[in-house]
Amino acid sequence: MTDALNERSLIERFFKDCGARRSDVALGVGDDAALIDVPPGMQLVAKTDTLVSGVHFLPHFPAASIGHRALAVNLSDVAAMGAEPAWALLALTLPKVDAAWLAEFAAGLGALARKHNVALVGGDTTGGPLCITVQVLGYAPRPPVMLRSGGKPGDVLFVSGTPGDAGAGLAVEQGQLPNATSAAANYLRQRFLFPTPRVELGQRLRDFASACIDVSDGLLGDATKLADASGCGVVIEHEKLPISPHLTSTVGDTRAREIALTGGDDYELCFAVSPSNVEKLQRALPPAQWGYSPIGVLRAERGGAVTRNGTVMHFSHSGFDHFAR
Amino acid sequence: MTDALNERSLIERFFKDCGARRSDVALGVGDDAALIDVPPGMQLVAKTDTLVSGVHFLPHFPAASIGHRALAVNLSDVAAMGAEPAWALLALTLPKVDAAWLAEFAAGLGALARKHNVALVGGDTTGGPLCITVQVLGYAPRPPVMLRSGGKPGDVLFVSGTPGDAGAGLAVEQGQLPNATSAAANYLRQRFLFPTPRVELGQRLRDFASACIDVSDGLLGDATKLADASGCGVVIEHEKLPISPHLTSTVGDTRAREIALTGGDDYELCFAVSPSNVEKLQRALPPAQWGYSPIGVLRAERGGAVTRNGTVMHFSHSGFDHFAR
Repeated sequence: MTDALNERSLIERFFKDCGARRSDVALGVGDDAALIDVPPGMQLVAKTDTLVSGVHFLPHFPAASIGHRALAVNLSDVAAMGAEPAWALLALTLPKVDAAWLAEFAAGLGALARKHNVALVGGDTTGGPLCITVQVLGYAPRPPVMLRSGGKPGDVLFVSGTPGDAGAGLAVEQGQLPNATSAAANYLRQRFLFPTPRVELGQRLRDFASACIDVSDGLLGDATKLADASGCGVVIEHEKLPISPHLTSTVGDTRAREIALTGGDDYELCFAVSPSNVEKLQRALPPAQWGYSPIGVLRAERGGAVTRNGTVMHFSHSGFDHFAR
Repeated sequence: MTDALNERSLIERFFKDCGARRSDVALGVGDDAALIDVPPGMQLVAKTDTLVSGVHFLPHFPAASIGHRALAVNLSDVAAMGAEPAWALLALTLPKVDAAWLAEFAAGLGALARKHNVALVGGDTTGGPLCITVQVLGYAPRPPVMLRSGGKPGDVLFVSGTPGDAGAGLAVEQGQLPNATSAAANYLRQRFLFPTPRVELGQRLRDFASACIDVSDGLLGDATKLADASGCGVVIEHEKLPISPHLTSTVGDTRAREIALTGGDDYELCFAVSPSNVEKLQRALPPAQWGYSPIGVLRAERGGAVTRNGTVMHFSHSGFDHFAR
């Protein structure tokens, strides 16, 4: 059927060399499919995620951010498996060919790809509503050690970074937090537009964590998913949540902690560590240097709960509709 | 951002078990990413392709066909590498949750996946304009032997199946060929709605073909791409084109050959075989049984040409805009 945008030249022009060069790519962009040498003894890790205009971003958002995020959301999932990302494929549906937009999109995606030594090995462009699907392939040693399901009651739960910043950054980007200082607005906006997938932390956690999940839909909801998969529940201590000073100064402490629990788009790692491993973890990966904090524990009783000074808080924990209310 | 459709439950409900079961899938749908054991010594093959509503299909087309085609277009590319497909990921953007549509879509995709022993190992559903991206992973022995670039002047060019049927089938589906008999209309329509990726043929061709390409954008255009990649040109003999009786009876011989050269959506294989291998090929894979035909040769002079009784025909060889004129 008619599809003027289905041109290999677009992929070759904008994306062929935008990622890392890797000697294990036997055949990249340009043939019917890519050929890759997976390192011997390693298990292949595969993940795909889509960003849709109007749902995950608005069309006027910076193209470099859209490119960055399309890759970052997948890298974050690969990081949560403790895996090393290595190769990516891009399926890009575009309403029109806008060379300036494409160049900026490719620059954003390419910079993050090169930072993590990820080669772009294939792609497809199509005409249609703006929609981006990236697949990331990587590898990890066998057997897998850091699934969602490996947690046990008593394990200490940690989160990387300062969740909530990205959710507030989206509100800034949409003009919903006009009282933020310019320093806070810039910081929060950057955390939404250019999230940091915790790729190296994920790999280092293999030696210590019993379970791990990527925080993309809200910390409380995602921590509860990890607990569910592990056949247990989770308690998060409200006062332990790591909140950035810029988030607190912009929305106040109470609201900041609410956003940290329920805001989406963080792309941080939430992971469980058995009590006997906590000291080893903190010695090998100093928390201040690696940027992670204890926030609660897994417990036998199912479900997710938040306590404040030891009392359970009543809390609507939808991870999705925060700014849509 | 708000995305009520981004629910793992949709993938788990409709797609988790729709493909083949494979013992090399260490972890399928349900965690942050899939874990796969690629057979030792094999090279990984990866391909992604997108179908967009209004571009590659119309929303009222049968959902089973849309699911079938979303996988078939990728299997065809993997077949053109002589590879064995094994695993797939699905990124599905949906305007709404329509359980009947999803069940039919999954049935179409799942039937083709099981036929080729492909496991669905991951997926993502998102709210937005209808758009489907499938990624197929597979493997092939090293070194790769059947790239687009391996052809040489003098190689005999073959095509599988009867190209043009799918292009005419689309016209039938759109009500543009009202004079077709119902038998012809049904046949042509099926060739568009449920194309047959030549997966087994592709793997068997590894021992004989010097180059191969998936015919998706029109035979003449795709054969010329193969020739270009091989640093040579191609001549196709008009009278040798394999045309289905239903296509000829519907549009006449002249138009049938034109559609065979320029219609899209065939998902056949076009491949080059050195003269010294042609007899071996035809003995090992009898053409009548395997359904392929010689249609021309590669030559040193660049570009693509069609000859009729030895005379070059003048021909607009766009592979895209056939039914859009």
